[in-house]
Amino acid sequence: MNAQDDYIIKPDLDSDVTTRPVKARDQFGNVLSLNAVQERPLTLFLNSREIVTLMSVGDYPDLLGVGYLVNQNMLTKDDVITAIDYDEEIQTIVIRTEHETDYEDKLKRKVLTSGCAMGTIFGDIMDKVEEAHLSTSLKLRASTIAPVLQKIKDTPSLYQKAGSIHGCVLCQEDKPILYTEDVGRHNALDKIAGYLYLNNLQADDYYLYTTGRLTSEMVIKAVSMGITIVISRSGSTHWAIELAQKTGLTLINRARGKRFLVLNDQDRIIYDL
Amino acid sequence: MNAQDDYIIKPDLDSDVTTRPVKARDQFGNVLSLNAVQERPLTLFLNSREIVTLMSVGDYPDLLGVGYLVNQNMLTKDDVITAIDYDEEIQTIVIRTEHETDYEDKLKRKVLTSGCAMGTIFGDIMDKVEEAHLSTSLKLRASTIAPVLQKIKDTPSLYQKAGSIHGCVLCQEDKPILYTEDVGRHNALDKIAGYLYLNNLQADDYYLYTTGRLTSEMVIKAVSMGITIVISRSGSTHWAIELAQKTGLTLINRARGKRFLVLNDQDRIIYDL
Repeated sequence: MNAQDDYIIKPDLDSDVTTRPVKARDQFGNVLSLNAVQERPLTLFLNSREIVTLMSVGDYPDLLGVGYLVNQNMLTKDDVITAIDYDEEIQTIVIRTEHETDYEDKLKRKVLTSGCAMGTIFGDIMDKVEEAHLSTSLKLRASTIAPVLQKIKDTPSLYQKAGSIHGCVLCQEDKPILYTEDVGRHNALDKIAGYLYLNNLQADDYYLYTTGRLTSEMVIKAVSMGITIVISRSGSTHWAIELAQKTGLTLINRARGKRFLVLNDQDRIIYDL
Repeated sequence: MNAQDDYIIKPDLDSDVTTRPVKARDQFGNVLSLNAVQERPLTLFLNSREIVTLMSVGDYPDLLGVGYLVNQNMLTKDDVITAIDYDEEIQTIVIRTEHETDYEDKLKRKVLTSGCAMGTIFGDIMDKVEEAHLSTSLKLRASTIAPVLQKIKDTPSLYQKAGSIHGCVLCQEDKPILYTEDVGRHNALDKIAGYLYLNNLQADDYYLYTTGRLTSEMVIKAVSMGITIVISRSGSTHWAIELAQKTGLTLINRARGKRFLVLNDQDRIIYDL
């Protein structure tokens, strides 16, 4: 069976939104053609409030917008989304909720005092992460990893088409199912968070593969999403490793071909190779 | 002659600030030791005002702090720095100037109105970039690039020691002279900006090599620094290429070994291979 068939979401290579052709010269001066990934601003509104302008490759703006708010703890399970209005022309996305969110209320009060609520918000996120109780049910066989990485590698992607882009892939058992890409690895992960939130899915049964490095921010996002195993093609910062140990997140680095390094095991890896 | 001898600034591998040893398991479960780069918050103050908290590997905090302010257009040639106070314990750096900066004044007025001045600041930076007149004097022989890349590759680095870190190298003729690294490629470039500012140097005669991808933000920083040629080991986003064309920045991508791709020439490259 074709690995592609398992995907719920995968890179759309036919879209002209995400890449553009460019001309270049090689070291000898010979002209050649290649593709470059788009990087365009997407300004995100939560109801009437402007939240942030994200630099994005431009696909799945709804998943990115919702996922960003979820991972920033600005949108919670208690909030009910009534509309998601994306305007490609002016590159804005507006997420509308039934009632004003806690965050908006908090921000309103905060702005009256010290002008910027970002400190508070980060504090809230860290609290959420510290309190997180990650499920221990998911186990992963070491022998499963290489075949899954191969399936991902065999999937046509913007990375293959243009390079200079990061990918995140949510996997279940031996199947990659959600494959998102963006110019920032955080955006790619936020898109997955957006899908999980909009489809009311728990991340407990899934594990994440990412091409990007694991910084503290990536670990914080993964843990707040309830992901219990993160596999990176790249490495981790020391703080990311500390946060994984503190929160009980299984961390795997340098996953290439048949090789990988387990930085934090948490008894989720079955060494069967 | 040893390539190291040309460096004014290079990675300090003896410092225990930048990396820490960690234990890991390979795919068979065998325990091994490696190093992980530090990622720690550095909170930056301009006089009495808290500006930002940067995640940094922790070396050259003075260059990072000053360079960040310079590249954000918060510190200009007209400002006189009277003190740089770094407190490693509480991870703060305070840049003190003789007089209040334009930025502080602007921010003060702005906060009274709409609560956050970031929009204004970005506007200012874009204006500065659009107005930039990059020097056309510097030419670079295609035959110079591979030997310089080899010298950089031969330089002991945090990347070699621990991986998961980006490097920026400012080069003159066939010599790499300023080699900075950080968990974020922007920080590595800001450190170079800090050195240039503190030593009152123009970037006109130098070209930049970076391991990181070139996004719009990297091009904006390079142009506002007066750098005229940027060489990346990786690729560029389409907007980065557009900005290079608009501002007249020479952009080289995928520079590995003897190969590279010129995305925007600007008649600065002499094809002599």
